[in-house]
Amino acid sequence: METETRGYAADKDALLTRLARIEGQVRVVAKMIDEDRYCIDVLTQISAVQSAIDGVALGLLDGHVRHCVVGSSGETQLERMDELMGAVGRLVKS
Amino acid sequence: METETRGYAADKDALLTRLARIEGQVRVVAKMIDEDRYCIDVLTQISAVQSAIDGVALGLLDGHVRHCVVGSSGETQLERMDELMGAVGRLVKS
Amino acid sequence: METETRGYAADKDALLTRLARIEGQVRVVAKMIDEDRYCIDVLTQISAVQSAIDGVALGLLDGHVRHCVVGSSGETQLERMDELMGAVGRLVKS
Amino acid sequence: METETRGYAADKDALLTRLARIEGQVRVVAKMIDEDRYCIDVLTQISAVQSAIDGVALGLLDGHVRHCVVGSSGETQLERMDELMGAVGRLVKS
Repeated sequence: METETRGYAADKDALLTRLARIEGQVRVVAKMIDEDRYCIDVLTQISAVQSAIDGVALGLLDGHVRHCVVGSSGETQLERMDELMGAVGRLVKS
Repeated sequence: METETRGYAADKDALLTRLARIEGQVRVVAKMIDEDRYCIDVLTQISAVQSAIDGVALGLLDGHVRHCVVGSSGETQLERMDELMGAVGRLVKS
Repeated sequence: METETRGYAADKDALLTRLARIEGQVRVVAKMIDEDRYCIDVLTQISAVQSAIDGVALGLLDGHVRHCVVGSSGETQLERMDELMGAVGRLVKS
Repeated sequence: METETRGYAADKDALLTRLARIEGQVRVVAKMIDEDRYCIDVLTQISAVQSAIDGVALGLLDGHVRHCVVGSSGETQLERMDELMGAVGRLVKS
């Protein structure tokens, strides 16, 4: 049984701070719509949310490569590389 | 001075419901990181957030085209088409 | 039967010039792979191709909105807006 | 001095075949514009080109992770991971 540390452990606080900010940004989008703000202004705010989430995703991927992939070997490493490429593929398409 | 209805007015409740769900999904991502869940599982959840936000953005764009662009004319319409294309450009790059 | 002018008519030469350049960029990518160039350098060139293609797509969308959508009415306009949103959706996901 | 094999060596022929097909797809887009085909049909063809290029990019990234990153160590490995994350970031934004 593994009780290993995750790849993003070192950045955990930073990631949580960014997610709290993203949650706030999503609430701002909802408030803008509730107040009938102009569609284009809402879309500009949504683009900011998307960039912020991309940033969190790239941070997690980075931790995964640096620790989970590089820090493993054999079968486990092959599996983690497959998972990495699957995750990158989903990000590129999304 | 305009007091016009926004393009997304008809779907306002649906958009707000989707944003409330997205806010919950962002909190789930934070909780997963806080609990040291496996990076790849967190990334899968992030992809779901990104798809959901794309959906809201497309809904807003749709309202903008149907009402703000089509329902205007002259200079105002030209300006709104420029804004539309700017917003689409930001979405495609993000 | 329609023999209408397409929305991108005014920019047709510019679009064709850009596509000829993109075709050349794709050949450069192939040449780099054939010469065993470093993966990351090939990926940088691929990002340039992707940006260039996004540019052509945005140019076509712009023409579609300005001419095909705005220049029509009734059922035809509704249909073209649906097609527009479908195309934007595919671009945002791709 | 390194004379190493690139990460994508095993798939080189497959990648070149895919790029030749993409070059043909770009020519089809140009032909469609030259023949004044309907904007939305051209955009559908462009989406196919974008998916095909994403596929080549993911293939190159996969080779880079499996060989260049995993097959190195120390400073070189750190540098290659940085390059990998830079390339993933560019793909996610493009």
